[in-house]
Amino acid sequence: VRAGDKPAVLELIEDLHVADLADLLEQIDSETRRQFLDMAWSDIDQEVLVEVEEGVRDDILSWLEPERLAEAAREFETDDVVYLLEDLDEEQQRQVLEALEPEDRVAVAKSLTYPEYSAGRLMQTDFVKAPPFWTVGQMIDFLRASAGELPEQFYDIVVVDPAMKPVGTIPLSKIIGTRRPVTLSALMDEDFRTLHVEDAQEDVAYAFKQYHLVSAPVVDDDGRLVGVITIDDAVEVLDDEAEEDLKRLGGVGDEEISDRVWEITRQRFPWLGVNLMTAILASLVISLFEGTIQQIVALAVLMPIVASMGGNAGTQTLTVAVRALATRDLTPTNAMRVVARETVVGFFNGVGFAIVMGLIAWFWFEDPHLGMVIAAAMVVNLLVAGLSGILIPLALDRAGADPALASGTFVTTVTDVVGFFSFLGLAALVLL
Amino acid sequence: VRAGDKPAVLELIEDLHVADLADLLEQIDSETRRQFLDMAWSDIDQEVLVEVEEGVRDDILSWLEPERLAEAAREFETDDVVYLLEDLDEEQQRQVLEALEPEDRVAVAKSLTYPEYSAGRLMQTDFVKAPPFWTVGQMIDFLRASAGELPEQFYDIVVVDPAMKPVGTIPLSKIIGTRRPVTLSALMDEDFRTLHVEDAQEDVAYAFKQYHLVSAPVVDDDGRLVGVITIDDAVEVLDDEAEEDLKRLGGVGDEEISDRVWEITRQRFPWLGVNLMTAILASLVISLFEGTIQQIVALAVLMPIVASMGGNAGTQTLTVAVRALATRDLTPTNAMRVVARETVVGFFNGVGFAIVMGLIAWFWFEDPHLGMVIAAAMVVNLLVAGLSGILIPLALDRAGADPALASGTFVTTVTDVVGFFSFLGLAALVLL
Repeated sequence: VRAGDKPAVLELIEDLHVADLADLLEQIDSETRRQFLDMAWSDIDQEVLVEVEEGVRDDILSWLEPERLAEAAREFETDDVVYLLEDLDEEQQRQVLEALEPEDRVAVAKSLTYPEYSAGRLMQTDFVKAPPFWTVGQMIDFLRASAGELPEQFYDIVVVDPAMKPVGTIPLSKIIGTRRPVTLSALMDEDFRTLHVEDAQEDVAYAFKQYHLVSAPVVDDDGRLVGVITIDDAVEVLDDEAEEDLKRLGGVGDEEISDRVWEITRQRFPWLGVNLMTAILASLVISLFEGTIQQIVALAVLMPIVASMGGNAGTQTLTVAVRALATRDLTPTNAMRVVARETVVGFFNGVGFAIVMGLIAWFWFEDPHLGMVIAAAMVVNLLVAGLSGILIPLALDRAGADPALASGTFVTTVTDVVGFFSFLGLAALVLL
Repeated sequence: VRAGDKPAVLELIEDLHVADLADLLEQIDSETRRQFLDMAWSDIDQEVLVEVEEGVRDDILSWLEPERLAEAAREFETDDVVYLLEDLDEEQQRQVLEALEPEDRVAVAKSLTYPEYSAGRLMQTDFVKAPPFWTVGQMIDFLRASAGELPEQFYDIVVVDPAMKPVGTIPLSKIIGTRRPVTLSALMDEDFRTLHVEDAQEDVAYAFKQYHLVSAPVVDDDGRLVGVITIDDAVEVLDDEAEEDLKRLGGVGDEEISDRVWEITRQRFPWLGVNLMTAILASLVISLFEGTIQQIVALAVLMPIVASMGGNAGTQTLTVAVRALATRDLTPTNAMRVVARETVVGFFNGVGFAIVMGLIAWFWFEDPHLGMVIAAAMVVNLLVAGLSGILIPLALDRAGADPALASGTFVTTVTDVVGFFSFLGLAALVLL
């Protein structure tokens, strides 16, 4: 299609939602993407810049002249401009900022002073506020009079006092269903959640999910209203945080499916390096028992089973723990109860598989003692797996680190070392 | 606190949001929970029933008499009632249904006829619709007149034709900012997304995230409007789906942090059983080379390293693939490109770690040939890890299965078997 036939291409993408267009741009290769953009940039919804993922955006930004970028940014909401500017170098930032209208420029520059991944970066500075003494009628007249300047979408009115402190919020559905003479102060909900500009984005997302919010006012250090965060931004963050946990547990960084070979190789290498070191540690444990293995080769055959079962059981516990920490269902209140429970679960599963594997080993190698040794090692390792699967993420969390980060490697290191040591050690004691 | 001092307890929980109250109920043990509910049930927000997680809800439902449950359910939104009824047995369902107002009863019973996890179960049957010829003034007057009967929260008006087919949607922010004489047909957005009652809930969540929706009309087979889904339900589903992927990759089922020991043991056992079988498969491969290991015990020491590196590399690829399939970033269009890329990444990382590990083995066991053997096995296994990490989830997805389910076990089975076979096989060929 991209053989230069512009009308045909435009017709094809005409009905696409901007988010689908972004997906399309992510799926084609870089060269086709540039050809497409050369052809169609001025005809497409330029908000696609905000929709595409980072790698693709960088690629587009390196293609787009700063003037055209600045021109596009003028049409965006302020939170989208902030999001876009975060990735640019200073010179590019300056050019875009200069192109904005003075009011937006101040707001965007201000947002950029807040820490990355904070509420201040997520918020829209364009919002609707009103004093408590206004009536519903005045509110509606004001909104009608300022029709052209309202935010694209808003769901609540923030009621503020003369010092710009929010004193209540009113959903539009309530305003529109109320008669004109009623004052806002009679209508407003005074029991509402405010966010602070420096709140971490994951706390923002948590508040939206927990309290079913659709929008929430953001205040600065003096408690003054400076912006509003809407649900679409919170959904984005919620999804990003879930993705981060999943990827960290899988031992991958920030990569996207559209990243290039070199980038991916470079990102995965350090994780595999850590794994190599822990694997060597486990090998050192095995090497302590070289003599034992030489006499009973069956040990070499069976030892990966003990380690593998421990690794799996530990990963199960770890997964549940990381998720429960992320959703704040695992707290200091119930931590001790959960640790105790995991220990018991580890013991029960350990006994179950000890019996199964003990019998298998006995009949396979026709040696009841070998069966007893692997059974005992299985109980020990699954018990340790349960304990380390819960204690390691709890400890990382308490230390202020992300419990998903690297904990998978820690847990499997523990279960490998304990698995090999208990199995080979017991074998050396009992069978020789 | 729960020593029977009711006023003190009530004061403590007075300012709690219902979602926080739910968290509290999840964190205390079952007995304290019942004592607390005996004391405070009639004073708390009974919507807490909808907020708590499944295990705790079942516990509360077994404590709550059907009459009191039915009474509570009368105050809920219809989608919440549906959600609650899903878990009850038929007798309980009947009792609750009978207590509802006739209109709600019909709506709830109808919702229950749709498949589980479908749009029909998620939707609210209480929504605001209007004909296109109404003016903004008529709309506002209608809303004011029916103030008491409006849904608790709504964000859009659905414009319907005489056959109840949706023809457009209008956000409240647009209605409220427009003068009274304008007709809805002039205001409405005709390019909106409709969902079908039988759409899977994950498709619903995807649509909300992708198109930044806050609410969407749901139609039946005849295209008639039967309900509306709002963003809070979609957020819930999005979060559940992310949790499901994470847990399935970690080899755990549906368990929650508040589940009991026996439940958890029973849920984890089958996964560990599958792992045991695959571990035995790997052991069978090792047993083919018992003779080789007896002659060179160093092989037993080093072999877990090759398997472990393969398992990790495979899990990395798998994690990215599962996530990309869930977010629909990995599609038939780019699948071949991604497979090719993973192969190359696997090869590069394989070569890198082959050099590192080859040198380590050479110096550790003072045998250059052993170093060469482990290096070659490393390249083979990381290549296979990359390939199986991407091909297995793609194949599961194409077959209509969940790519997260069991794929971790498949991938590590492949990398274990290939790892042991390539390392020990090459050793038997080269070193003996």
